[in-house]
Amino acid sequence: MSKPMKLAVAVAFGAGLAAAIPAHAQFAKPEDAIKYRKSVMFIQGQTLPRLGAMAQGKAPYDQAQAVANAETLAFTSRLFPAAFGAGTDKGDTRALPAIWSDPAKFKKYQDDLQAATAKLVAAAKAGGGADALKGPFGEVAQVCKGCHDDFRKE
Amino acid sequence: MSKPMKLAVAVAFGAGLAAAIPAHAQFAKPEDAIKYRKSVMFIQGQTLPRLGAMAQGKAPYDQAQAVANAETLAFTSRLFPAAFGAGTDKGDTRALPAIWSDPAKFKKYQDDLQAATAKLVAAAKAGGGADALKGPFGEVAQVCKGCHDDFRKE
Repeated sequence: MSKPMKLAVAVAFGAGLAAAIPAHAQFAKPEDAIKYRKSVMFIQGQTLPRLGAMAQGKAPYDQAQAVANAETLAFTSRLFPAAFGAGTDKGDTRALPAIWSDPAKFKKYQDDLQAATAKLVAAAKAGGGADALKGPFGEVAQVCKGCHDDFRKE
Repeated sequence: MSKPMKLAVAVAFGAGLAAAIPAHAQFAKPEDAIKYRKSVMFIQGQTLPRLGAMAQGKAPYDQAQAVANAETLAFTSRLFPAAFGAGTDKGDTRALPAIWSDPAKFKKYQDDLQAATAKLVAAAKAGGGADALKGPFGEVAQVCKGCHDDFRKE
């Protein structure tokens, strides 16, 4: 696909999303959206290491906890997209302008995060123990890191 | 049930929960737990008015949005209990000491919140439109308000 074509697709898809979830109806003020996405990321930042500790044998494996924490990551990942609307690039945020100048790349990370966290939930539910968590955990951590490297100020 | 009996039941149940979800394994520092529960409540505070606007006809009714927002409330309500562990009564928090001195009453609110948000999800999914949201929405709002009145500093 050519670059302009990719952009057209991304814009069309973005417009579809916007129709389904009108950003203006979600947040009264841009700073609410910023605080909302930071709240989501704080919860995720507290949750991911719990799974990492289990995957790496630093904490005892507990399937119910693994499932609950994986589900928290999966659910909260779906709360992200609406919180990066127009006007939320300024203020108390480390979000880089590239989020809005390269929306297709940013959206890819969001899709990847949803896919990776879904795999983590499946792995936890399947009951393969700590070893089965390792791969999916690594994949989720990699998506987090990639997105932060590309789209978050140091 | 007598008061001491109720307390014994609450303590036993609390101990059971603690065994299933060890607070110390969840949060490295009390301030993390405080920030975590505030993050949960901020997300809920952004979500509830969207349902209120639909229930009251101030925003157009959109079933997918109603379900998504109700599910956000229901899911995040389950993240609460672990974030009020020992040592999280001090710091950057408006939590009142009664949370820890009357855990049975506080737990009742948490249970009520989970029950009320589950009803809201069911009402949104059933597709009865804005009118069907009114009752369950009011019930959720009432639980929020009751708990804030009893357990949160002005």
